[in-house]
Amino acid sequence: MNRIDVKECASLLKEFDGFLILSHRNPDGDTLGSAFALKRALALMGKKSMVRCIDDIHPKFSYLWKDVDNTDINFDKIIAVDVADKKLLGEEYERLYGDNVFLCIDHHLSNRAYAENLLLEDRAAAAVVIYEVICQLGVEITPEIASCVYTGLATDTGCFMFSNTTPTVHRIAAEMMEKGADYTLINRLMFETKTLSYMKLEQMAVSTIESHFDGKCAIMTITQDMFCESGSSSSECDGIAGIPRKIEGVLVGVTIRERHDGSYKVSLRTVEPIDASKICGKVGGGGHNRAAGCEFNCSLEEVKQTLLKIIEAELK
Amino acid sequence: MNRIDVKECASLLKEFDGFLILSHRNPDGDTLGSAFALKRALALMGKKSMVRCIDDIHPKFSYLWKDVDNTDINFDKIIAVDVADKKLLGEEYERLYGDNVFLCIDHHLSNRAYAENLLLEDRAAAAVVIYEVICQLGVEITPEIASCVYTGLATDTGCFMFSNTTPTVHRIAAEMMEKGADYTLINRLMFETKTLSYMKLEQMAVSTIESHFDGKCAIMTITQDMFCESGSSSSECDGIAGIPRKIEGVLVGVTIRERHDGSYKVSLRTVEPIDASKICGKVGGGGHNRAAGCEFNCSLEEVKQTLLKIIEAELK
Repeated sequence: MNRIDVKECASLLKEFDGFLILSHRNPDGDTLGSAFALKRALALMGKKSMVRCIDDIHPKFSYLWKDVDNTDINFDKIIAVDVADKKLLGEEYERLYGDNVFLCIDHHLSNRAYAENLLLEDRAAAAVVIYEVICQLGVEITPEIASCVYTGLATDTGCFMFSNTTPTVHRIAAEMMEKGADYTLINRLMFETKTLSYMKLEQMAVSTIESHFDGKCAIMTITQDMFCESGSSSSECDGIAGIPRKIEGVLVGVTIRERHDGSYKVSLRTVEPIDASKICGKVGGGGHNRAAGCEFNCSLEEVKQTLLKIIEAELK
Repeated sequence: MNRIDVKECASLLKEFDGFLILSHRNPDGDTLGSAFALKRALALMGKKSMVRCIDDIHPKFSYLWKDVDNTDINFDKIIAVDVADKKLLGEEYERLYGDNVFLCIDHHLSNRAYAENLLLEDRAAAAVVIYEVICQLGVEITPEIASCVYTGLATDTGCFMFSNTTPTVHRIAAEMMEKGADYTLINRLMFETKTLSYMKLEQMAVSTIESHFDGKCAIMTITQDMFCESGSSSSECDGIAGIPRKIEGVLVGVTIRERHDGSYKVSLRTVEPIDASKICGKVGGGGHNRAAGCEFNCSLEEVKQTLLKIIEAELK
């Protein structure tokens, strides 16, 4: 499929009148903020669109589609936003739409080029790419569009904390604030709000933390019992794997999560120079330098012992 | 004392050759980042200075003074940075230096004007004011100065999350990143690092959370026993009072901390439109709209009942 630039993307959007805009499964602030920013911009150009996602969207995001008509329409073309691979549309959507995606707007290095592809992989968020497209379209950035773009920027960078944050991200954030983004509300909803059940789960998880190798490695365990007891569910737990690495002196933070079927999902977070993907790669997993994962089908004790051996070697 | 502007401040700094730069007690990233940014800028102008603070400085801040000569010097003038009131220098420093502070560079609305006063109260951090002074001085912003300024910006805005964050803050952050601020390290040290003992304390505190008035009010209690058991100390607990308000649906978050002498310190955090200072004002405390405090000398149960009555009335 063609790799296109921002200008070409804007031209393609101008050509058609009705769009189905797809977000990735387990939708986050970037895929949703980007989708609704695009939908709102297209509406200002007199075009119809509808945003769809295979999974339920958390109600905390409802400000993104406030006063938006998102009912079913007849569409000409399908656009996927922040969706690196058509598999990430979710099984049913992949079957329904996967081969007919016309345009993909994305920022993931792992993008599989399954459509006309506006891929800017050095951008911190898909919302940055969407911002550039909207500027190219010459559409006015309303306060509502600004809120959508800000949501993508802020959530994909952990509120400007992660190392993917760039000067450009800060400057676009500044502009979105000036254009009326409701950043106080957004920051509170995205970063300052937890359910009580999730907080209880965190508390139980922290109580399991074990320290190894002079505190350089910390292991936290989350069992199915804890989900039951706290009332929390794994859908709330996106950030929980970040906890063990937060401990002072920790270079390798390990989170072991028990699945329904009794198998274990392991998330690794590391501090430079420890390579998380290298450690997980040794047991069939993979990922990025600082964040990676792997899976086990054995006892919890065996999971720990296997990982500790590999981590010990890496720390040396 | 005179209220001065950035230009006048720069002129005053040019006039003298040796400075004692004072930070406020319980030093945070803004007072320290500002102080060392100024010290580094003065050094580039061939001037001598030393930064002093009455309290011990947490070693996590040590990158601020890396490769800096901070030994005793003979100074001409005293500068207080981010110090709204000379009382905030700490008792001994107030006695030693309080009446001889020549220049104060600050951003607090509550500033008491005890020296030549560069007070820009609409700036989110003292580091913004220092940045403006350094630009006015015409000194090159080195990577080290950029790291100091970035530290002040990021810490006083909760990594660009708090409602005091402005477009200007984002733009200066962008510039500091381009000038070489080590933002990955700084964000990790400031926002991603907790001691294990503090994490254990958090865990114990969360387990005490009570929910009232359909979840609109949450009360968390921290006892002296918890400090003992976790090994944490109150010096680590700056952020802990933010926890109850983070719970979904909470409008009033209350943190009750037992003191050594058995009295109780209460911190209130609220969501718009609930006025925290009004609630605390009814029991002799005070503060800001969204964050306020008060004290009690009675039993824990009485503290809770007194507060719940006032909060119930406010929620109506």
